[in-house]
Amino acid sequence: MIGRLNHVAIAVPDLAAAAAQYRDTLGAMVRDPQDEPDHGVTVVFIELPNTKIELLYPLGENSPIAGFLEKNPAGGIHHICYEVEDILAARDRLKASGARVLGSGEPKIGAHGKPVLFLHPKDFNGCLVELEQV
Amino acid sequence: MIGRLNHVAIAVPDLAAAAAQYRDTLGAMVRDPQDEPDHGVTVVFIELPNTKIELLYPLGENSPIAGFLEKNPAGGIHHICYEVEDILAARDRLKASGARVLGSGEPKIGAHGKPVLFLHPKDFNGCLVELEQV
Repeated sequence: MIGRLNHVAIAVPDLAAAAAQYRDTLGAMVRDPQDEPDHGVTVVFIELPNTKIELLYPLGENSPIAGFLEKNPAGGIHHICYEVEDILAARDRLKASGARVLGSGEPKIGAHGKPVLFLHPKDFNGCLVELEQV
Repeated sequence: MIGRLNHVAIAVPDLAAAAAQYRDTLGAMVRDPQDEPDHGVTVVFIELPNTKIELLYPLGENSPIAGFLEKNPAGGIHHICYEVEDILAARDRLKASGARVLGSGEPKIGAHGKPVLFLHPKDFNGCLVELEQV
């Protein structure tokens, strides 16, 4: 069911410093910051040869990562995203297994313009898992 | 400098249950468990089309992930691993930037039989970063 690892998302306390570190020290291809007001984050994409790292920084009130950074002031890995071909079929299979889908259970349009769902970390070894239909 | 994301390592409290979930519920290709006594872990590799997930479970006394699971009883993402071509050149560049390399600073042979180093999470946005020479 799951396909590629689409990205690893890292919440960071200083977006400019983190982007500079990935570009200058780690020598990666780092994109310009993008504000995603619908998702309450500013994102910097880091393009690795086989997947992406997404650096996340809070944007606006009620950012979904503000609480995470309060608990983890140095930052940390926020979620991992697996690709699926059919997000509704994936959701139904997961729910049938007893896994909890966050929110209403209906896919939302994610930061890449594609349908996404988030799964409850307590059902996935403490990892917040995003599914993205590709 | 960094190349592919080699793997994401997830520490899990129940290796058989986590492997079964990735195989049966998430439909991924899950390998048999491997004991890595030199590293104090039993590992289950999950082969995604573009990278790997490594499920980690403590093996023996003084496992490096026992403390992590005590702090995170549900499990959690333990580290991410980036590939580099020359681990000594990478280490020297990182140290020159002020980043801390864990342990003696000399590469060890990792779970894949290749030289690895770990970088201090406080210097990398709260993420434990492994570098593996490929």
